Amino acid sequence: MNWQLQAQEGQARASSFTTAHGKIETPIFMPVGTKATVKAMSPKDLQEIGSQIILGNTYHLHLRPGESLIKELGGLHQFMNWQGPILTDSGGFQVFSLSKLNKIREEGVEFRSHLDGSKYFISPEISMQIQMDLGSDIIMAFDECLPYPSNREEIQKSMQMTYRWLLRCKEAMNRKDSHLFGIVQGGLDLDLRKESLEQICSVDLPGYALGGFSVGEPPEIMHELLPQIAPLMPKEKPRYLMGVGTPKDLLIAIDSGIDMFDCVMPTRNARNGTLFTWQGKVSIKRQQYAKDPRPLDADCACYTCKNFSRAYLRHLFMNNELLGSHLNTYHNLYFYLELTRRARKAILEGRWKSFFQHHIQAFDQKDIDA
Amino acid sequence: MNWQLQAQEGQARASSFTTAHGKIETPIFMPVGTKATVKAMSPKDLQEIGSQIILGNTYHLHLRPGESLIKELGGLHQFMNWQGPILTDSGGFQVFSLSKLNKIREEGVEFRSHLDGSKYFISPEISMQIQMDLGSDIIMAFDECLPYPSNREEIQKSMQMTYRWLLRCKEAMNRKDSHLFGIVQGGLDLDLRKESLEQICSVDLPGYALGGFSVGEPPEIMHELLPQIAPLMPKEKPRYLMGVGTPKDLLIAIDSGIDMFDCVMPTRNARNGTLFTWQGKVSIKRQQYAKDPRPLDADCACYTCKNFSRAYLRHLFMNNELLGSHLNTYHNLYFYLELTRRARKAILEGRWKSFFQHHIQAFDQKDIDA
Repeated sequence: MNWQLQAQEGQARASSFTTAHGKIETPIFMPVGTKATVKAMSPKDLQEIGSQIILGNTYHLHLRPGESLIKELGGLHQFMNWQGPILTDSGGFQVFSLSKLNKIREEGVEFRSHLDGSKYFISPEISMQIQMDLGSDIIMAFDECLPYPSNREEIQKSMQMTYRWLLRCKEAMNRKDSHLFGIVQGGLDLDLRKESLEQICSVDLPGYALGGFSVGEPPEIMHELLPQIAPLMPKEKPRYLMGVGTPKDLLIAIDSGIDMFDCVMPTRNARNGTLFTWQGKVSIKRQQYAKDPRPLDADCACYTCKNFSRAYLRHLFMNNELLGSHLNTYHNLYFYLELTRRARKAILEGRWKSFFQHHIQAFDQKDIDA
Repeated sequence: MNWQLQAQEGQARASSFTTAHGKIETPIFMPVGTKATVKAMSPKDLQEIGSQIILGNTYHLHLRPGESLIKELGGLHQFMNWQGPILTDSGGFQVFSLSKLNKIREEGVEFRSHLDGSKYFISPEISMQIQMDLGSDIIMAFDECLPYPSNREEIQKSMQMTYRWLLRCKEAMNRKDSHLFGIVQGGLDLDLRKESLEQICSVDLPGYALGGFSVGEPPEIMHELLPQIAPLMPKEKPRYLMGVGTPKDLLIAIDSGIDMFDCVMPTRNARNGTLFTWQGKVSIKRQQYAKDPRPLDADCACYTCKNFSRAYLRHLFMNNELLGSHLNTYHNLYFYLELTRRARKAILEGRWKSFFQHHIQAFDQKDIDA
């Protein structure tokens, strides 16, 4: 992977590493491309906004169109025409949160598709095979992700199995061009988290992730835990916080030493008309924007902000126009990527602390249209 | 307008004229931007595919967001950030086809919005005012468009009123940067068509259109009438066939001397998964494309065809992904524009007849997936 640290301020890191499809500079946000497409964005758009790596969802792709079809067509990069790096999750999270009637055994998980109820079975070995067939650059271990709240006994039992599953994943993942990342679980109790972290990180792997956050708990719990957990992860490898989060979450996580993020928030919120700006959130459907000639965010250089008014974005949203979903998604993803770009620049230039303080306040304020 | 004929072969013409927002080279297809957006396309996309002029719908824009809001925000070009020419229809067609309970009087038409049932009134003067407020480059006369079939008496009464309305439109349209086009009606009887054509074209205007086609009649009727009607329109002015049509319709109309077209077919069909190719139509949802690695149309240089397989387009369509609507629309509009570009080139190079014969056969065949 050729991981390199470029700068560190406190725990915040600017680093880089390479994959078969290119270099990644951290901190970095990864747009979520659930079904072999980042919703409402073409690969050209993703390049324009500076995406370095995107995420694909193993669960969804396994169900439709199936990894064998994608493999036959040259792999996920070729299928969706994205030539940069791709990280795939293991399918575990969706199996536990989306599917119906899942039955968890040591061997793996039996579940029914949320689409048509048909039966599936995924094990650590099957998850690895699917991700290898997709041709993913970064393959995530198949783990159990518990809901919030869960009790200590459940958590302990589950994290032990996640560890045994990781050993099986490592055994099964034999694709040379891919990198396997382990996932730390352990719920929201500091001691169990530390225990899981030690277990998972005892397995020699090119990178590690924190799973089991943003599963319904109050955000303050994660904000308190991250500074105590992230710095314990191996120093010379990428650290990935899965499924997180708000701009504020990202700042706190970067400040704790996290390098990589993914979340559906910028894309999903965009389609619902909630837009992120450097001054706070904007709900574009509000009447107050009906005649507003200003760009969504004067501090943003994206195509949407350079070319269209709030009034026009509101008009598109109110009329359910496809261009509205596109322009909103384009902006929100640009904002998230720009946030990680500016964070990286601040770390490289030794002014992370003031960057952090300044923006955490802005993001903490109420929505700017409230 | 500085209309210029560059070449003619039989009745087919290659010409050009200018508007306040740029030059137009004919034959030309105008993408339909109903509600201040060509569905699923950004202005950047429209430029990329070589759109020269787009169409806006007065009826829809009058209802939402209203021309006064658009005027306040700098006009339609500024509002939607399209800097090329815009043609607006008069609202007449939608008033008669979409709205509820319309009452037609000499003064104008009272109708209820198809959105919320609220009452509106549009007259020739009001239609002109709306289009002038939008800042349209080409303003269409407010005419009555009868459904098919209508009887001779209705048609005669209606075309007389359309003529009187045109005189009022000409009186009311006083925007220097806009050009008013008259609309020939007269149903589908040759003699009445000719009578309306003579009346409408007796009013000195920068361009003329044929209305009242593609209103439900069998396509053969239009194919027979066009060669007898279009050549009678003034020779030194643009000729526009409204709301038409299929690729075959366009070829026959160009062969009859028509210069300009608009139609929702490429955009609407795209969203429904019906795609146009030089070999015929493709219904992308068909199972036969599930593993098809070929581009949609090997003879097409658009972004969609250069970068994605039929299998991927089918996957996006089956999963209702927004990118599918975008890529399909991008291709279909590119195809229509390329059809008019290739037609123009053929006319300029004196090989229109063979171009016409070759493609009319291909477009006449069954769908390529049938």
